[in-house]
Amino acid sequence: MGKVGEGGFVFSQSNGGDAQEVAEAAARTLRRKVVPELVSERALISFPVEAMTKFLVGRDLERQREICQLVESDETFSNADRPFLSREQNYVRALQKAAKLVEWKIQHKWSEDDMLMAMKATGDSLPLFLHEALFIPTLKTQMSDEQLKKWLPLAWNCEIFGCYAQTELGHGSNLRKLETTATFIPESDEFELNTPTLTSKKWWPGALGQSSNFAAVYARLILHGRDYGVHPFLVQIRDRLTHQPMPGCEIGNIGKKIGFDNIDNGFLGLSKVRIPRDQLMMRNIQVSPKGEFQHGKHGKLGYATMIKIRAIIVRNGGWSLAQALTCAVRYSLVRTQGGETLPSQGGREVKILDHAMQRFRLTTSMALAYASIMSGIVMMDLYHRNLSNTLKGDVALLAETHATSSGLKALCSDLTLHAIEDTRRACGGVGYNWASGICELYTTFLQDVTVEGENTILHLQTARWLLKSILAAQKSGKLDNVPSGLVPYLKDPSFTSHQKSALLTGRPVSAQTLIDAYWHREARLLQEMLDRIRQHYPSGFSEQVVADHMVDLVELSRAHCEGILVRNFEDAIHAYEQGAPAHKGVVTVLRMLQELHGLHRLLERVGDFVLDGYLSPAQATWCKERRQELVDALRYDLIGLVDAFDFSDNQLNSAIGRFDGRVYESQYEWAKYGMTLVAKGKDGGVLGHDEVLQHVFTQGRKINASKL
Amino acid sequence: MGKVGEGGFVFSQSNGGDAQEVAEAAARTLRRKVVPELVSERALISFPVEAMTKFLVGRDLERQREICQLVESDETFSNADRPFLSREQNYVRALQKAAKLVEWKIQHKWSEDDMLMAMKATGDSLPLFLHEALFIPTLKTQMSDEQLKKWLPLAWNCEIFGCYAQTELGHGSNLRKLETTATFIPESDEFELNTPTLTSKKWWPGALGQSSNFAAVYARLILHGRDYGVHPFLVQIRDRLTHQPMPGCEIGNIGKKIGFDNIDNGFLGLSKVRIPRDQLMMRNIQVSPKGEFQHGKHGKLGYATMIKIRAIIVRNGGWSLAQALTCAVRYSLVRTQGGETLPSQGGREVKILDHAMQRFRLTTSMALAYASIMSGIVMMDLYHRNLSNTLKGDVALLAETHATSSGLKALCSDLTLHAIEDTRRACGGVGYNWASGICELYTTFLQDVTVEGENTILHLQTARWLLKSILAAQKSGKLDNVPSGLVPYLKDPSFTSHQKSALLTGRPVSAQTLIDAYWHREARLLQEMLDRIRQHYPSGFSEQVVADHMVDLVELSRAHCEGILVRNFEDAIHAYEQGAPAHKGVVTVLRMLQELHGLHRLLERVGDFVLDGYLSPAQATWCKERRQELVDALRYDLIGLVDAFDFSDNQLNSAIGRFDGRVYESQYEWAKYGMTLVAKGKDGGVLGHDEVLQHVFTQGRKINASKL
Repeated sequence: MGKVGEGGFVFSQSNGGDAQEVAEAAARTLRRKVVPELVSERALISFPVEAMTKFLVGRDLERQREICQLVESDETFSNADRPFLSREQNYVRALQKAAKLVEWKIQHKWSEDDMLMAMKATGDSLPLFLHEALFIPTLKTQMSDEQLKKWLPLAWNCEIFGCYAQTELGHGSNLRKLETTATFIPESDEFELNTPTLTSKKWWPGALGQSSNFAAVYARLILHGRDYGVHPFLVQIRDRLTHQPMPGCEIGNIGKKIGFDNIDNGFLGLSKVRIPRDQLMMRNIQVSPKGEFQHGKHGKLGYATMIKIRAIIVRNGGWSLAQALTCAVRYSLVRTQGGETLPSQGGREVKILDHAMQRFRLTTSMALAYASIMSGIVMMDLYHRNLSNTLKGDVALLAETHATSSGLKALCSDLTLHAIEDTRRACGGVGYNWASGICELYTTFLQDVTVEGENTILHLQTARWLLKSILAAQKSGKLDNVPSGLVPYLKDPSFTSHQKSALLTGRPVSAQTLIDAYWHREARLLQEMLDRIRQHYPSGFSEQVVADHMVDLVELSRAHCEGILVRNFEDAIHAYEQGAPAHKGVVTVLRMLQELHGLHRLLERVGDFVLDGYLSPAQATWCKERRQELVDALRYDLIGLVDAFDFSDNQLNSAIGRFDGRVYESQYEWAKYGMTLVAKGKDGGVLGHDEVLQHVFTQGRKINASKL
Repeated sequence: MGKVGEGGFVFSQSNGGDAQEVAEAAARTLRRKVVPELVSERALISFPVEAMTKFLVGRDLERQREICQLVESDETFSNADRPFLSREQNYVRALQKAAKLVEWKIQHKWSEDDMLMAMKATGDSLPLFLHEALFIPTLKTQMSDEQLKKWLPLAWNCEIFGCYAQTELGHGSNLRKLETTATFIPESDEFELNTPTLTSKKWWPGALGQSSNFAAVYARLILHGRDYGVHPFLVQIRDRLTHQPMPGCEIGNIGKKIGFDNIDNGFLGLSKVRIPRDQLMMRNIQVSPKGEFQHGKHGKLGYATMIKIRAIIVRNGGWSLAQALTCAVRYSLVRTQGGETLPSQGGREVKILDHAMQRFRLTTSMALAYASIMSGIVMMDLYHRNLSNTLKGDVALLAETHATSSGLKALCSDLTLHAIEDTRRACGGVGYNWASGICELYTTFLQDVTVEGENTILHLQTARWLLKSILAAQKSGKLDNVPSGLVPYLKDPSFTSHQKSALLTGRPVSAQTLIDAYWHREARLLQEMLDRIRQHYPSGFSEQVVADHMVDLVELSRAHCEGILVRNFEDAIHAYEQGAPAHKGVVTVLRMLQELHGLHRLLERVGDFVLDGYLSPAQATWCKERRQELVDALRYDLIGLVDAFDFSDNQLNSAIGRFDGRVYESQYEWAKYGMTLVAKGKDGGVLGHDEVLQHVFTQGRKINASKL
C-alpha cells in the first residue's frame, strides 16, 4: 500500500503484478504542481480563504485539521481502491478503517466529538458510525446511570458492537404501530422478545447485517397483559466469540441499496428471546421486579437528540453540496469546450465556467451550500440552548425548535440533493463516472430525504405545529409563541391583501426586503388555510384537515422553512460581524451569497410572490436581473469559495476535483489503476471473452463461412 | 438455475449448498395468488386495460409479446441474481444473455426491430445493445454499398463485435475539436490513425472496454496535409482470435459509473495504427487512391439517425417512468401507514396511495409518463415521414424536426428523470433498496440527460433555430417556416401585452385553452428576447447573443418544448379517436391525463403565466383546484394505468412492483436469497468478523478487563 499523499489517489490494493508499477507511475505523474489555470484563478480571489474556512468550521478547525492529518498519514485510509471493489470488499475495507479508528480512540483518549471528526476525515461511510453516533448515544440518553456504568465501557471500547433497531418491514415512520413485543415474565424477572409476524421483523438497521452483536431493540412493553407502548431494550443478538446469531435470532443483510453500500443494513427476527429485566433501558421509564410501570423525569430528552440529528442533516446537506461544488468548480476552470467562434476567443475553446449557464447553475448552488451550512450552525446553536434549558426543566423553546428542525431537515435535504445532482450533471460525461467523486456523494446522501423522518411527514409536522400555534394564539390573544414575523398579520388579517414589497428596482435587494417577502408569502398561505378551516371544519383543526390538505400543508411548511433559511443566513452573518475579528472581505462575499440565495429561492417560486400583487412585474424582473448581476460578480471568487471548504484530495476521492486541477492525467491514471484490480477471464484472457464471446465469434465465423 | 416464472424472482446462481433450498422455498411462497388488496382495486378500473396497452404499444404488441414470452421461457434471462453480483459478474451475465439472443437472431431470422424488442424484453442492459443499435446502424448509414456487402454480414452474425468511438477524454459535445487524426498514406493506400495527446484518447464508448474487436472511430481526415474534418473509420482494435489489443492500440475500461454498469465503457489510444483506405466509411464522402476528397449525396442522413435516437430517448423516458410507477402504485395499494386516528379508519392504517400527497405525486407523474409516451409516438412518426422525405431529397421538414427533437429530448429526459426519482422517494425506505426495482432504473436512465447531446447544449440548439427562423420570417415576411401558434404574434407584436386567457373558472380546462396558454408564454419570452437583440446587438443575432443570454434561451427552449409536449398529447389522442376501433373508456381517461398534465406543467411555472396578467389570480387558483379534482378522479384507475404498461415481473425485477402485490414476502425472500450469494468470512464465519471484528472485540475485552 502507498501513502495517502498530495495526489489523493493512492493505490493501495493489488491483485496483479503490475498494480505496483502502475501505482508508482501514477504517483510520479500526479506529484506535479498545480495547473496554471488554477494558479491564475487563485490569484484573483477577493477575500482571505483561511478566514472563511475558520468562519465555516468554527472553533473545531484546529482539532479537525490535526485529526485529518493523522488519518491522512496512514495508508489504511486511502480511498483510491474503493470505486473498483465489490460491495463485500468495500465492507471489509470499511471495517479495517473502523478498527484503526477504535485503536486510536483508545490510545489518544478521543472524545465523542473527536471520533465523529475522525470518521468524517476518512471521507468514507463506516458501519462504525452507527455504533458511535447512534447506538452509544441511545445508551446515554435511554439507560439509567446504573445501567450505563455496566454497558457504556463495553460499548465505548468496542468490546461489543451495537446497532439501533427500530424500523420494521411493515412499519416505518408510524412508531405507534410497531409490532415487536417485549413481554415481562415475572417468574424469571426477564423479558421475552418476539417478532410475531413477517411485517414485524426489524428491517433496515445499519450495521445489523453483519457487524453488530448487540442491538437497541424498540419493542412494545407488555406488563401483565397490558401494552405500555414502545420502548428500547438492549438485546444480545450474536455470540460474543463466534459471532453466530444467538438462539432465537434470525439475522440477515437486506442487500444492495442505491448508495451507502459499505454499510450492512440488516434484518432481525426474534423468537422467544429472553433478556434480564434490567436490559430494558430505564432512564426515562422504569419497571419494577413486580412488573410495575413508572415514568421517569427526562421524558423530553429524546426530542433533544432528534433535533440534533436533524440539525446535523441540515449541516451535512450544505457540506455535501460543498464537496460536489469543489469538484465541479475546479473542473469547470480547467475543462474547456465550445465558444471558440466568439470574437474574444481567438479560436480557443471557453472554460466551461465561462458559459453563462454553467456559471448560473454552480453559483446559485454555491449560495445554497453556504445558506445550508449557516442554517446548520444556527440550528446547532439552538439545539445547545434548548438542551441546557430542557435539562433545567424549561421546555418553552422545545416545540418550536422541534417543529423547525423537522421542516428544515426536509427542505434542506431536498434542495441540497437537487443541487448536488444538478452539479453532477453540470460535469457532463465525467459526472456520470465514479471518477467525478460526485456519484457516491449523491447516492449516499440520497438517504437523507427518507431517514430520520420522511420529508413529507416532517413537513406535515411543521405545518401542524404552525397551524396549531396560530389557532391557539388567535383564541387566547397571546402572541408570544407565534413566529415574530406573523404577528402583524395576526393583528390585522386584511394586511396581506394590500401589502406591497418595498423592493426598489435597480438597487441591491436588502436582507430585510427579502425577509419581509418570505413572511408575506407565508402569511398569505397561512390565511388561505385558516379561511378554509373556518369555512369547512366547524369543529376546527383536526387530523381530517391534514388528510384533506396535505399538498397545501407541505407547501406551507416549505414556505415557512424557506423563510427560516433566509433569516438564519442573516443571523449567522450578523453574529460573525459582531464577533472579533471579522474580515471585511469575508463579510462582503457572504452578503452577496446571501442576497443571491434569497433572490434565487424567491424566483424559483416567483408565482407565489406575484400572484397577489405583492411583487410587481417590474420588481420581479429586477430580481431576475439582480440575480444575474450577483452570479457574474461572484465569478472570480468561486475558486476561493470552494477552497475555503478545505476538503483534502483523499476526502474528495475525485479525479476532477483535485486541488492541483490535473483533471485529465488523473482520470487516465484512475482508469488504468482500476484495470489492475479487475478480474481477468477464466483462462487468463480478457474478462467475458474467455467465458462467452469467443463462442459467439466462432459461431459467427461458421455461419458466414457457410454463407459467403 | 430455475425457470423465470410468474413470481419474477427466480433464483439462478448459487455459491452455497443452501441456495437451491432457499430458492425452492421462495418459489413456493411466491407462487401464491394475487393479494386481495389488488384484486379489489382491479375490479374498479373504468377502462379496458388491454385496449390501452394496444394503444400505447401500437402495432408491435403481438410481436413484442411473442418475443417476450420466448425470453421469459429461458432461465438465462432471470434477473433475480443481478442485485447481488459484482460489476464484473454482472458484465459476464449480460454477455451470456447477449450470446443467447444472437443465437436466436440467427436461428429465427430476426429483423433489427425484433432484436431491439428482445433486448428490451430482458429488462437488462446489454453491451450487445451498442453493437446492434449503434455500431450496425453506423455501418448502414455511413458505408458505401460495396463496403456494406463485405462488413455487414460479419457484424450482423456477430463474427465481429463493434462499438461507436467518438467522444474523447478532452472533447465531448463539440465535435469540431476532436483531435484523433487519420492521415492518408498514398504510398501504401492506407490511413494512419493517431491519438496524439492525452486529451485525444477515445473515452466513454460503450462496449469498448472489453467486448469489441472493431470500432467505428471518428477522426480528422488528413489528406496531403489538409484537414477535411471529422469522419468515421472502421478500425480493428483487438485480435479476432486472442481478443488481445492490436499493435498500437491501448484499450481499457473507464471504471465504475453511477449506473449502466453492465456496460464496459472504455478508452482507446491509437499510435500509428494503419488501416486500408477503404475502411474510411464512404457512403457520404469518398477519398480516391490519389487522396482526392469528394462529397457524397446523402449528407443529411446522419441527421435522420440523430432524430431517431432522440425520439427513442423521449419515448424511453416515458416508459422508464412507467416502470417506476408500476412498482410504486402497486406498492402504495398494499402498504399501509398512519392515518389510523381518522374517524373513517376505525384504527386501521391508511393505504399510502390514499394519503393525498402520495396520490398527488404519483398521479401527476402518471400524466407525465403518458405525455412522454405520446410524444414518443408522434416524434417517431415525424421521424419516419422526415426520413422518407429526405431520401426523396425533400429536406423542408428537417431543420424543424431536428430542432424539435433536440429540445424535446432535453425537456423529457429532465422531467421524467425528476419524476422517476420522486417516485422512488415516494416508496419511502424500500425506495432506497435495490429491491424496489427503481434504483437501477433511475441510475441507468440518469445517463439520458447527458448522452446524445447534453441537455443544456440541446436546448440552446432549439433556441437558436427558433430565433433564427423568426428573424428570417420577420425579414422576408414569409411565415411558412414559423411554428403556427406564433404567427398571430408575429403579425401583431403588441398582441401579447393585452391578451388574456379564455380559461373559465369552475369548468374543465380544454386542450385548446391549455395550448393557447403555452403559445402565449412562448411568444412573450420570444418577444422579450427579440427586443433585447434589437436594442443591444446592432448587427443582429450571433453567437455572442447566445453567450450572453444562455439562461434565458434555455428557458425559451423549455417553454417551446413544453408546448410541443402538450400539443403532441392532443395529436395522439386525436389520431386514436380517428382510428377504429377507439374505446370510449380509454379516450376518457386519456383526456383526463392530458388535462392534468397540461395544468400541472403550467402550475409548476405559474409565475410565467400570471406575471403579465395573461392568467388572473382567480384563473390560476382554479387551475390548482381543477388539478386536484383530476388527481382525485383518477384514483381508481391508477392500477389499470400501470397494468396497461404490461411489464413482466422479470422486467420489473422489483420486490414491491410484482403483479401479485406480495410486497413483504418478496422483500424477505429477496434478502434471504441475496445472503446465499454473498461471500463468507475468510475462516468460514461471518464476513468481516473473521477479517477484522474479532480483533477489535478481543482488544476491547482486554482493555475493559484491565480497567473494570
